[in-house]
Amino acid sequence: MSEKLFFASDYQEGAHPNIISKIVSTNLEATPGYGQDNYTLSAIERIRKACSCPNAKVELMVGGTQTNATVIDALLRNYEGVVSPKTGHVALHEAGAIEFGGHKVLEVISDKGKMSAKDLKVYLETYYADENHEHMVKPGMVYISQPTEYGTLYTKKELEELSKVSHDYSLPLYVDGARLAYALASEENDITLSDLARLTDIFYIGGTKCGALLGEAIVIPDENLVSHFLTTKKQHGALLAKGRLIGIQFDELFKDNLYLEIGKKAVKFAKTIQDSVSGLKTLSLLYRTPTNQCFIIVPNGKLETLRSKVSYGFWEKYDDEHTVIRVATSWATEEESVKELISVLEAL
Amino acid sequence: MSEKLFFASDYQEGAHPNIISKIVSTNLEATPGYGQDNYTLSAIERIRKACSCPNAKVELMVGGTQTNATVIDALLRNYEGVVSPKTGHVALHEAGAIEFGGHKVLEVISDKGKMSAKDLKVYLETYYADENHEHMVKPGMVYISQPTEYGTLYTKKELEELSKVSHDYSLPLYVDGARLAYALASEENDITLSDLARLTDIFYIGGTKCGALLGEAIVIPDENLVSHFLTTKKQHGALLAKGRLIGIQFDELFKDNLYLEIGKKAVKFAKTIQDSVSGLKTLSLLYRTPTNQCFIIVPNGKLETLRSKVSYGFWEKYDDEHTVIRVATSWATEEESVKELISVLEAL
Amino acid sequence: MSEKLFFASDYQEGAHPNIISKIVSTNLEATPGYGQDNYTLSAIERIRKACSCPNAKVELMVGGTQTNATVIDALLRNYEGVVSPKTGHVALHEAGAIEFGGHKVLEVISDKGKMSAKDLKVYLETYYADENHEHMVKPGMVYISQPTEYGTLYTKKELEELSKVSHDYSLPLYVDGARLAYALASEENDITLSDLARLTDIFYIGGTKCGALLGEAIVIPDENLVSHFLTTKKQHGALLAKGRLIGIQFDELFKDNLYLEIGKKAVKFAKTIQDSVSGLKTLSLLYRTPTNQCFIIVPNGKLETLRSKVSYGFWEKYDDEHTVIRVATSWATEEESVKELISVLEAL
Amino acid sequence: MSEKLFFASDYQEGAHPNIISKIVSTNLEATPGYGQDNYTLSAIERIRKACSCPNAKVELMVGGTQTNATVIDALLRNYEGVVSPKTGHVALHEAGAIEFGGHKVLEVISDKGKMSAKDLKVYLETYYADENHEHMVKPGMVYISQPTEYGTLYTKKELEELSKVSHDYSLPLYVDGARLAYALASEENDITLSDLARLTDIFYIGGTKCGALLGEAIVIPDENLVSHFLTTKKQHGALLAKGRLIGIQFDELFKDNLYLEIGKKAVKFAKTIQDSVSGLKTLSLLYRTPTNQCFIIVPNGKLETLRSKVSYGFWEKYDDEHTVIRVATSWATEEESVKELISVLEAL
Repeated sequence: MSEKLFFASDYQEGAHPNIISKIVSTNLEATPGYGQDNYTLSAIERIRKACSCPNAKVELMVGGTQTNATVIDALLRNYEGVVSPKTGHVALHEAGAIEFGGHKVLEVISDKGKMSAKDLKVYLETYYADENHEHMVKPGMVYISQPTEYGTLYTKKELEELSKVSHDYSLPLYVDGARLAYALASEENDITLSDLARLTDIFYIGGTKCGALLGEAIVIPDENLVSHFLTTKKQHGALLAKGRLIGIQFDELFKDNLYLEIGKKAVKFAKTIQDSVSGLKTLSLLYRTPTNQCFIIVPNGKLETLRSKVSYGFWEKYDDEHTVIRVATSWATEEESVKELISVLEAL
Repeated sequence: MSEKLFFASDYQEGAHPNIISKIVSTNLEATPGYGQDNYTLSAIERIRKACSCPNAKVELMVGGTQTNATVIDALLRNYEGVVSPKTGHVALHEAGAIEFGGHKVLEVISDKGKMSAKDLKVYLETYYADENHEHMVKPGMVYISQPTEYGTLYTKKELEELSKVSHDYSLPLYVDGARLAYALASEENDITLSDLARLTDIFYIGGTKCGALLGEAIVIPDENLVSHFLTTKKQHGALLAKGRLIGIQFDELFKDNLYLEIGKKAVKFAKTIQDSVSGLKTLSLLYRTPTNQCFIIVPNGKLETLRSKVSYGFWEKYDDEHTVIRVATSWATEEESVKELISVLEAL
Repeated sequence: MSEKLFFASDYQEGAHPNIISKIVSTNLEATPGYGQDNYTLSAIERIRKACSCPNAKVELMVGGTQTNATVIDALLRNYEGVVSPKTGHVALHEAGAIEFGGHKVLEVISDKGKMSAKDLKVYLETYYADENHEHMVKPGMVYISQPTEYGTLYTKKELEELSKVSHDYSLPLYVDGARLAYALASEENDITLSDLARLTDIFYIGGTKCGALLGEAIVIPDENLVSHFLTTKKQHGALLAKGRLIGIQFDELFKDNLYLEIGKKAVKFAKTIQDSVSGLKTLSLLYRTPTNQCFIIVPNGKLETLRSKVSYGFWEKYDDEHTVIRVATSWATEEESVKELISVLEAL
Repeated sequence: MSEKLFFASDYQEGAHPNIISKIVSTNLEATPGYGQDNYTLSAIERIRKACSCPNAKVELMVGGTQTNATVIDALLRNYEGVVSPKTGHVALHEAGAIEFGGHKVLEVISDKGKMSAKDLKVYLETYYADENHEHMVKPGMVYISQPTEYGTLYTKKELEELSKVSHDYSLPLYVDGARLAYALASEENDITLSDLARLTDIFYIGGTKCGALLGEAIVIPDENLVSHFLTTKKQHGALLAKGRLIGIQFDELFKDNLYLEIGKKAVKFAKTIQDSVSGLKTLSLLYRTPTNQCFIIVPNGKLETLRSKVSYGFWEKYDDEHTVIRVATSWATEEESVKELISVLEAL
């Protein structure tokens, strides 16, 4: 469509070719609606297997904000809120979807997107130590993202600690895995799908940003954690009539471990880009990430030139003379584009 | 997948071949997210043109319940409710999505899915005549469907009357067009897209049940009717990251009048089926519809045999010995299947 | 303030003299806030005793709509609605307070304010028989009023039947007792407070309309039915800082059986008024009630004269020439006023 | 009731004697319900006059959390949130009442309860500078308290600046005056009721903590700011049947400037207490306040002794060895009790 280099997000292109092929080849089959079709059933089986969780409840959803809002409403009572890192997606970038459902997002300080088990514990201890805590929203669950919105990763040890603190306070731990494929593909990652199923109470496996046209898969290791989820989904406008559309996609993503592979190229390219930027004088990294998002500090005077050649994301103001931009790679990024991007960055 | 005849719904298959082709051919293009892509922009232009509404606000959504809930929340204040026929989709089959958003569905009596202007007027007059009406939910908008959930159609005259009563009470009139293509394709229909744009304040053009994989297009003739709709969409979990997926589909549906043609075969087949049933002794029609849904009264003793050969929809209990089933045709129905279905029905 | 006769409602005057005396005599005592004071604790004990329910959870609230909305939110999950007679207060005259909390009011046909166990059962059977019931709001509890909004009473047998059907479907039964004193005072009544505690899961004892300045007392025989109710109350803006104000009132109302006596005069006067109207030519009763509300059919031409002498309540249009008005007696009604009212009615 | 000294809150006693007298003398008058009575109308006129606002809409409410939740719902659309100091009552101590209504509380840093115009401006500028701000909750109004929850006061200059920033961004400014009488009575205060009416768009005058049994009065200088407020109140369970109960109280509070006088003794006593504590070795002030709340740092080892003699409020943990307690005076505090309290503090 244009000559530009596209690094604005990891949802710029359509879907992995396997998915597209299957959508085409099954197009005229008639299947039952609302996720009762065989493709959805097969996808669910594959996901259970990949998570070593044969009895897990698996629910397919359309998008991330919808998934977060639906999960949180399904888990919480009205008097409860969701504990989240201050920079969590639910706290900032979901246009109040959680509050629309009646729940407060209870913010805990975070560092580069991560909340520590220690800070979570302090938050909970402080809540219960307050003699007036019954006048405050009761913490009802804990939300984190893997990778975080800042591209960082929790280690298995950190996740174990968060899991322990959450469970010490009888709070279900929920992991938003919108970009989970890029965590699983990172060399620094030591958390498997089975670990997630073991250490958390509910998590979702991102499709939209990881090779699907759309779709997210919720995994609930203990199927009794929620009830009447279909009605809750419908109430949230999240029950797709042609549910097979998501079923087919997750069936393909979990065939032959595709989901474990699909992020690898993206993570490699992000490393290449970050390596290059580290060596430049004009630019610098806000910090280095182990996944597919790169955060680069750019002098404001260079932004216009950059914008003319590359589509990137605005992240935040750094200081009066610099801006942080986000460059994201994805399963669809081509090596050639990465080289061109680096040339552009070097020439700034 | 099976030897069965599939008439359970109009959302059993994938999408119209034109749509699939375009999804395939554009798959690796990088486009901006959230509906800022050129396919979406083109779809919007085509829809405006088809509705003779060059300044209309057009918003693409994922599914019907989501669309209804989002539109209603965007139009109403907290103290207001939506007036709907007693059998309206929002009143019955959306799992309380409207109430989840805080609004009461104010039910008016209806006949075969249709609310008359007269009954609407009586409802509104009664409300305002009640000295305690400020203790009741204020009617804030009017909802109808075209075709209705019962497969029936409003005439232009009826729509004009509903429009007049609504506007006499300063209430926006909203039309749910989940199956609009089957109305537009009916010989009995005399309401065009331009009529809808002229007589109503907001309506949606159904995609999911009319040839798309998913997607509905909201049309707001007066763009100032709602503000900050993008934030409202996001809050409802209705903002698709890869918005182009819906953009491409509506762009194809409104290319060369496809949307006006796509329901014709379905309506013709439904007529054929209804003609056949009228001539049978064992079965009878609940009533005849001018669109793509057929409601057939079946002796309970015949249901099992029928179920073994045909997938159909349960509609309602008729009496202790009979059940009403729904048989739906669609853009994807084949003539051969219709013939086979009729044979099965004749042999019951 | 005026020469008029006041029969517009049962909340026209202040409070029973015993209550006023106690408010005066305790005015300068310092007590803990939020219902932790000794008057509230004493009131709770007296109510438990009067209901033969030593372990009941008793919660004091400010007003009726607030109580209904809070109780319903405390009992239901988001995907659930409250089953109510079509004419129930929650269905009509609470300005959407239940929907504001996210819940649909599921209406069942009723007769003079009463829902029969049979109609309730049909409703529930129909819901579960519908193959698509998961797309509909799940019935989550049952709401009735005693006396009803129409001044009628359930018999003990009827309440037992409603209790059985509700419990057969695992639905808690909730009774709105805004005017409970007038039920307890009726000769036709055979339901005691202990019966209510035995047959229902939660009910409230009305104060505002039964001799208090304000206040309603929720009784929950099984204290485990709800949890974190204080937080839910606070969230609903229903936690009074000076909780003692309601505590003192219920402490007085349940001292020496005052609550069982307080409605007697009102019921007797209502009988007198209804007896008189039955003998008139110009006026007639809509139907006879056994409690404190009288519904009188008045020719429209007489309304102005009546209004000039009596403050009454508009009930509903009867036909083009008649209107139904409501005349309510209360604990505060004087015999002299009743006589004058009857003279006015006779002279119409 | 006990020998203790009561300084736990400013809502421990009943009401000012003038109020009690009037409740007694009017008890058996019959008045229309829901705030249509003459006492309420008179109270409204007096409040308009005291605020130099002859056309203001004045609405009487029951309690503070209810008032905040109702006002915020009346002003905001669903996609909007309320900007509040991080320590604002709506952000912390209302059990999620604002979120229950669907709105996010957008927190701005604050100092001793106060948000500066500068910090508000930075917040708003940052929001609009973010390219993705449409994915975030739109700021829809600004909330502050006078005095703040921390006992501090905004100066007129600070209020003018907050008013200017709010209005520059078209945001209504709302002031929570739960303890407004103690601000008006402070020597440091330079903001009159007329200033509030001129500089803000809506504020409430606290009754519950300022001499009434219960009740808060909302003042809306431009009566067109909200519509259908009665229905919104009813929906929030905030419409009192016997509205005269609040009407009488505000009528008394605004007779002969009582509201301007009622806090003076409390402020003077708080000054005396703070002066004494400043001179002690064992105790110290967290900071000095100009109103009726004193925040005292107490060694943990002294708390038990103190608790045995004085009822005080827990405020927060200071460090591992100290706790901050709150001592509140009120219109009902006696000089003798203040002296005794000081003796107890000196003896710790």
